[in-house]
Formats: sequence, C-alpha cells, structure tokens
Amino acid sequence: MTERLLIIGGNAAGMSCAAQARRLRRSSDLEIEVLESGQWTSYSSCGIPYWVGGEVDNAEQLVARSPEAFAEADISINLGFRAEQIDLDAATVTARPVESSAAGSSKATTFAYDRLMIATGAQPLRPKVEGLDAEGVFGVQTIPDGQAILRALDKKPQRAVVLGGGYIGLEMAEAFVNQGLSVTVVLADPLPMASLDEDMGERVCAAMTKMGIDIRPCEPVRGIEVEGGLARAVVTDEGSYPADLVVLGLGVRPNSDLAAKAGLRIGITNGIEVDDTMRASMQEQVYAAGDCVQTRNRLTGQPMAIALGTHANRQGRVAGTNIGGRPARFEGVLGTAVTKVGNCEIGRTGLSTKEAEQAGFSIETTLVESTVKAGYYPDAGELTVKLLTEKHTQRMLGGQIVGGPGSAKKIDVLATAIWAELTAAEFASVDISYAPPFSPVFDAVVIAARKAAGR
Amino acid sequence: MTERLLIIGGNAAGMSCAAQARRLRRSSDLEIEVLESGQWTSYSSCGIPYWVGGEVDNAEQLVARSPEAFAEADISINLGFRAEQIDLDAATVTARPVESSAAGSSKATTFAYDRLMIATGAQPLRPKVEGLDAEGVFGVQTIPDGQAILRALDKKPQRAVVLGGGYIGLEMAEAFVNQGLSVTVVLADPLPMASLDEDMGERVCAAMTKMGIDIRPCEPVRGIEVEGGLARAVVTDEGSYPADLVVLGLGVRPNSDLAAKAGLRIGITNGIEVDDTMRASMQEQVYAAGDCVQTRNRLTGQPMAIALGTHANRQGRVAGTNIGGRPARFEGVLGTAVTKVGNCEIGRTGLSTKEAEQAGFSIETTLVESTVKAGYYPDAGELTVKLLTEKHTQRMLGGQIVGGPGSAKKIDVLATAIWAELTAAEFASVDISYAPPFSPVFDAVVIAARKAAGR
Repeated sequence: MTERLLIIGGNAAGMSCAAQARRLRRSSDLEIEVLESGQWTSYSSCGIPYWVGGEVDNAEQLVARSPEAFAEADISINLGFRAEQIDLDAATVTARPVESSAAGSSKATTFAYDRLMIATGAQPLRPKVEGLDAEGVFGVQTIPDGQAILRALDKKPQRAVVLGGGYIGLEMAEAFVNQGLSVTVVLADPLPMASLDEDMGERVCAAMTKMGIDIRPCEPVRGIEVEGGLARAVVTDEGSYPADLVVLGLGVRPNSDLAAKAGLRIGITNGIEVDDTMRASMQEQVYAAGDCVQTRNRLTGQPMAIALGTHANRQGRVAGTNIGGRPARFEGVLGTAVTKVGNCEIGRTGLSTKEAEQAGFSIETTLVESTVKAGYYPDAGELTVKLLTEKHTQRMLGGQIVGGPGSAKKIDVLATAIWAELTAAEFASVDISYAPPFSPVFDAVVIAARKAAGR
Repeated sequence: MTERLLIIGGNAAGMSCAAQARRLRRSSDLEIEVLESGQWTSYSSCGIPYWVGGEVDNAEQLVARSPEAFAEADISINLGFRAEQIDLDAATVTARPVESSAAGSSKATTFAYDRLMIATGAQPLRPKVEGLDAEGVFGVQTIPDGQAILRALDKKPQRAVVLGGGYIGLEMAEAFVNQGLSVTVVLADPLPMASLDEDMGERVCAAMTKMGIDIRPCEPVRGIEVEGGLARAVVTDEGSYPADLVVLGLGVRPNSDLAAKAGLRIGITNGIEVDDTMRASMQEQVYAAGDCVQTRNRLTGQPMAIALGTHANRQGRVAGTNIGGRPARFEGVLGTAVTKVGNCEIGRTGLSTKEAEQAGFSIETTLVESTVKAGYYPDAGELTVKLLTEKHTQRMLGGQIVGGPGSAKKIDVLATAIWAELTAAEFASVDISYAPPFSPVFDAVVIAARKAAGR
C-alpha cells in the first residue's frame, strides 16, 4: 500500500524532507507531493543579499534543485498553490492557485495525506507603523523579494534605508554600499548585531561607520513618508531619513497561522511546537520544520524561534528520515551564526552575556585581541574573541568573534567545544593547528580559553 | 632561599618556560638564567620560509621577545654560550662561548642549578651522502639559516632543489617560486606530504605541479655534486638536478645528545623521555620540552617526536607552570598541522590511514569534495575533506583537508571533535555556522561526518 506524504512549502525544510524521504523509500512505497505558493524550489534565501549586491549574477544560481530535478526523483511539485486550510481529522489540505485566487475565481483543490509536513517558513516582522506597506519597502525572504529590489535598483536610486541591524540588515547594507548607494541603518537597539554583547557590537558599529554607513541607534521607526504610493523617507523620533528604497531587517515571524487554525499547538515563540523528531506536538502523522517551528536551545533547554537555512535543512532532513522509517532526532541549536559587512566578519555561538544571565548561569567573560595570521605575516587583520564560561565549572557557554577576513569561521571551533561540553582548560589543551599564514602560534580562541582557565 | 632555574636553549620551549615560571614566582624566589648558543631568543622558526620568500621584511619581525625584554623581567640570557656537559649529580652545566670555542682557547664556565630545563631543539636530518656538508646546502631551522639562504639569493641564483616534501619542503618551494627561481622537489616518497593519505597527497602534488614546481617522486638523494666547495647538483638514481642552492626538508632529529651523555633516558624516537609534567624520566628537578623531547600521541598512546612551535610553546609553558609551583600537564598531541603551497592549503589532524592501521584501529574513510564558500559565491574555491572513523564505534580518528584559500583552518573543528571523542553522528549534529561568503549550507566537514555516520 502506497503511503502519501504531502508537504506544504517547497524551500529548504520542505524539500530536504522530500529528498531524504525519497532516499529511504521508493515511489511505489511513498508518494511525495509538494504545495508551493511561489514559482521556485530549494533556493538559498541567504544568498539574496549577494544577488542584490551584484556578487551573484542571477536567481537561477541560488537554486540548489529545480522542480524538474525533483520530478525526476518522483517528487511532484504544485507550484503556485497556496495551502488555505488543514483538516487534521479528515487528513486533507485545501489549496488554491495563487495567481487567479486574487481574482477570486479559482477553484480550491483538496489534497489527502497519510503524512503531512508543514514547512511554511517565516515572514519579515513589520512594526505597525503607517506607510510600511507602500511600494519601495522590501522584505528579503524570497526570490520575488530580490527581483523587486533589483527592479528598484534599475531606477538608479541614491539612498537606501535599512530597518534593523541583524544579519539581514548588515548584509543588505553591504549590498547597497556595493551598488553605490548612500546607506542609512535605522536601529531600535543601541547597536547593530544585538545578538552580540555590547563591547562586540560596538566593534561592528565602528566598522560599519568606517564603511560610510550612517547608523542611527535607538531610533525605532515611527512611520514611512509616502508620496504617490511610493516610500520616500523613514521617520523616527529624531528625524526623517530620505529613502529611495527601504528594506526590512527587523527579524522574522514564523508562518504558523495555517497550523494554528488547524488546531496544532503553537509555542510561546509563535513557532509550531514540535518534538525532537520534528513531529508536531500530540500528532503522530504531522511534521513541521524550518523557520515556522519553535526549536530548543541546547544550553538552556528554552524554546527559541530561529530562522536559518542550516536548521531548516537539518530539521527537514530529520523529518524525512523519520518518515523514511529510520529514527532521527534534531539535537537543538547553540545559536551559531556568521555574517559579514564589508571586511568586518562576525561570528557568534552559544549564549551571550544577557542570554546566559537570563537563563540563570553565573558567568565569566574573557576578551582577547589578536591577529588572524601571525603578526608579522602580510595582511594579518585584527580580531577580537570573547569567551563566556560558567563560573566554578568553567564550562564554555558562548563565543563571539569580530574581526578581519578569516576571523568568523573560527566560531565553529568554539561551537564544537561548547557542543562537546568542554571546559575552558580542556579546550585550551586541544591540539589546534598553527602556521604563520593561518594564525599566531596560539590562535586567539585558544588564548581566550587559556585566560579563562587561568583565573 | 632563592632557587635557581637554568635553561638550556633560548627559543620557543625554553623561553615559554622562563616566562611562565617568572609569572608565577618573583626574582627573589626564583633566579632564571638561560644558555643560548645563538644570538637570538624566542623567534618564529616557522616564519623563516616567509622571510626567505619575501613576505616578511627582516628577522627582527620574527622575534616575539628580545633578550632585552627578558632582562626586564629578570630573566638573564647568556647569548653565544653552548652547553657542553650536564652533571646531574653535581647539578651543574658546563658551557663555553661559541665564537672563541672554535679557536679552542675560550674558557668553559660552570653553571649550578636547582632546576634544569633542557630545550635544545632539533636539527635537520642529513642522509649520509657525499657533498651534503658543502656550501650551498641549507637547513631552515634558525635565523642564521635564513640569513645564509638570503645571502645566497642575493647572488641571483636560477635553480633551487628542495630535498623532501613535508611542510618545510613545501613552504621553501613556495618561497623560491615567489623569488622567481625554478624549483625542483626531490622526494624519497611517492608523493609530497607523506603525513597525508595518498589520495590527498596526490591533490597536493597536482597543485604543486600546476605552480611549475618540478616534482621528482621516489628518488632518494644519493649525493650532492660539489664544485669548488659549492653544491652544484643533486644526484638521485634517476638523474642529476642542477642546483644553485639546496635546501634540507627531510625532517628533523631531536637534539638529545647532551641529555643522553648526561645519562637521561632517550626514547625510541630519539627524543628525551619526559612525563606529562615535562619532567625527564626518573628525574625530580630536570625538565625538557620542545623539539628535543619524545611526546605522546593522544589517540594511540604511542611515543612520537614532533617538531612544531605550538607543542614547544605549550610544553615549555607546562614545565614553567610546574616549576612555578602549580600543577600542569601536557595532554598529548593529535598531530594537527596546517601548511600551504601557493594557493593550495593543507590541514591534517589525528591519524592517517596508515597510522590508524599500524595502531591496530579498524577504520572507515569518507571523502567529500565541496567548495569553501557557497558554490554561487565569487571565488568559491574547491576543497576535499577526508574523514577517518573507527568501524563500529564511529569515533572520529583523523581528518585531512586539501583545498583553496580558506580550507585548511577548518581542520581545527575536526581536531576539537576528535579531542572531545565525538562520534561522526555527534559531530554531524553540531550547530556549525553558515552564510554564503563562508561555506555552503553544510560545511564539507559536516557532510563528511554525516556520510560517515550514515553507513
């Protein structure tokens, strides 16, 4: 008897699930059908800023696997179909073609399932201020978002205002600088990269300012001035910033409404509640993964919503493995992330000082300033490493890096050490590599651990 | 009562010991005196190829801390004094000034100690063939070695022959290519980088050939043709390779003769036997560290001699900490190393296939070819990762990386995972960072672990 897997959402989480389930079960055993409201599958949303910035030539390059390639693996994709309703009792999903649904004339179709995978992603947070829906205000989530920004760039705009200073904000600021625009970043927070401690965020802020980016801290957006339907300026309590285009980088919100309406449990982060097998809470046959779910911080055990391609792909794969008949678990997140703005690289993992304190950890912090390569080697850029350790046990709890080219990926070493629950002294002993073109004799991450252990 | 620490050797291990002991004990409590046969202290031997290659301007840049700086910390250095004899019973070391000792006229001086630290380093291996002591044949261990090579370069030589394809061989080959010479690398082994598996060594070989380096595998050197006292060609069974200068990159031999003569135990690797506190075997007051000692492979427990700046510094520091009155242990080595030749980066850690099999491990290997950055990001170089895991337990035992810029330092992530005794499945779950300028959505090291775990 052939089982039927229906997947809502054809991007990272949904298609990782599809691909993995297909690897483990043949078409005669498992039919796989996907409902995707857009026209693209499995693309790198994280690549959009680089497409906008001109480093990537076209949207096709961002696509990891096309609908045609999935079709060859007997994974059938309904492009342009938006799911409107899930009926858990009937085990059906009702969907409607997107284009014609605007006209209100299209007919809804009902899809039956044995297993359902919800991978509806996230959408940009939009504060409730006037003018934010005007033309010229852009999200950076989808390929159509990227296309819209590129069309706006064709009109030779002069000034971009980016709302928010998280990784999307930074990457879009870089993209617009690369495109020759004047860039203003308007922040509700005192500093960009609020997921870093303040002393590290200050370094990012200084690097951005040096790039010519105008940073406006502590100025939450109050409204958008609109002229003839078009956004013309961003208004805060302090002033009005003229803008030929405005980008939303204020974080995202899980697309969990469809699941909520169906009666699935939604967590306090607004993500769909799932267990470590990626099954929706209290459901045997319904899975969810990616930006639309609530996940778990491995260090604190606390729920988080975290919208990153790696987790979406990993979680989708875990769901697909379970659907494929093999046990698999998603082991939680540390909150590892890297990004860059110009030549300033940024990495973070584990808990920030604020997060550690909120979770009740008693911590110590260690700051090390060093160079990426041996100090005497050409182009040895500077970097700063901050390490958070638990008082008394000296277990490593968090790491932050800001520095020149070659800095940020060092965060993976700290992430691995934190994941393995090493103490600072244990990590300081690890046989880490050294040669002058790659690091000083002791890498900054090792120096930080040694200092922390020596207290 | 003031104790007296005497250190033989003023480079990495010796001076790390001195600095750490001084941090923990004041001059009134511990006198520190150093015998150094050369004229330099605490310099980066690993930086010499880059000085020769023109990336570093002068020897002073390689010096981490000068004799004057040590003097300020009440660490007294006798430059140009070569230790000739250690008397363990009398607790004395006899030394003689180097310059005049050649004339046989200088007077030996006897230095008493309460604690002795032996940090006599290593010297290049010199196969017993004719002509190897001729002018124009260079080691790459010391600043005078570098000065001698640079003087030879002043004479506008055309052709360099490098003996050996380990990291020194590769780095010197790159240096001579950068200086515009034709470079031949003569190997006894079938491939460069014998510490890698063959399939990885082949990649290095291909990269070197592409740089225009002439590689002569399986041709152990049989002699040096000498004309007028000057090396003119390197002779093997296959031919004679004209050389204006010849460099020794055949590995090193611990300088343990002085210790052996004194009656200290020498291990099977020819290094001085020490315990994890860096005390010489059966000795309470005698320490040894750095290239002159025998150390321990953490994975196999087997003795190794490994000449690398990091271990010398770490071991010196461990000795200095113990002398300073605090307990410290050296936790062994994985054999982590990085190097590069042109744009080809190389990293390795843990056991190679041959080493694992010799140690009695039953292993599986996984090879992954990927890109350093997201495939669509500009200048995303290729890289190959090889992972060795133990059969049945799937514990990670070794990693090797060969690839473009940004590849090699990823080895630290594998080193940390191996050190922490993670299985491939555990490491595959670690929350490793991702953004398009830094890696594909799954870093090659993660893909390798996932594949290994999926078997």
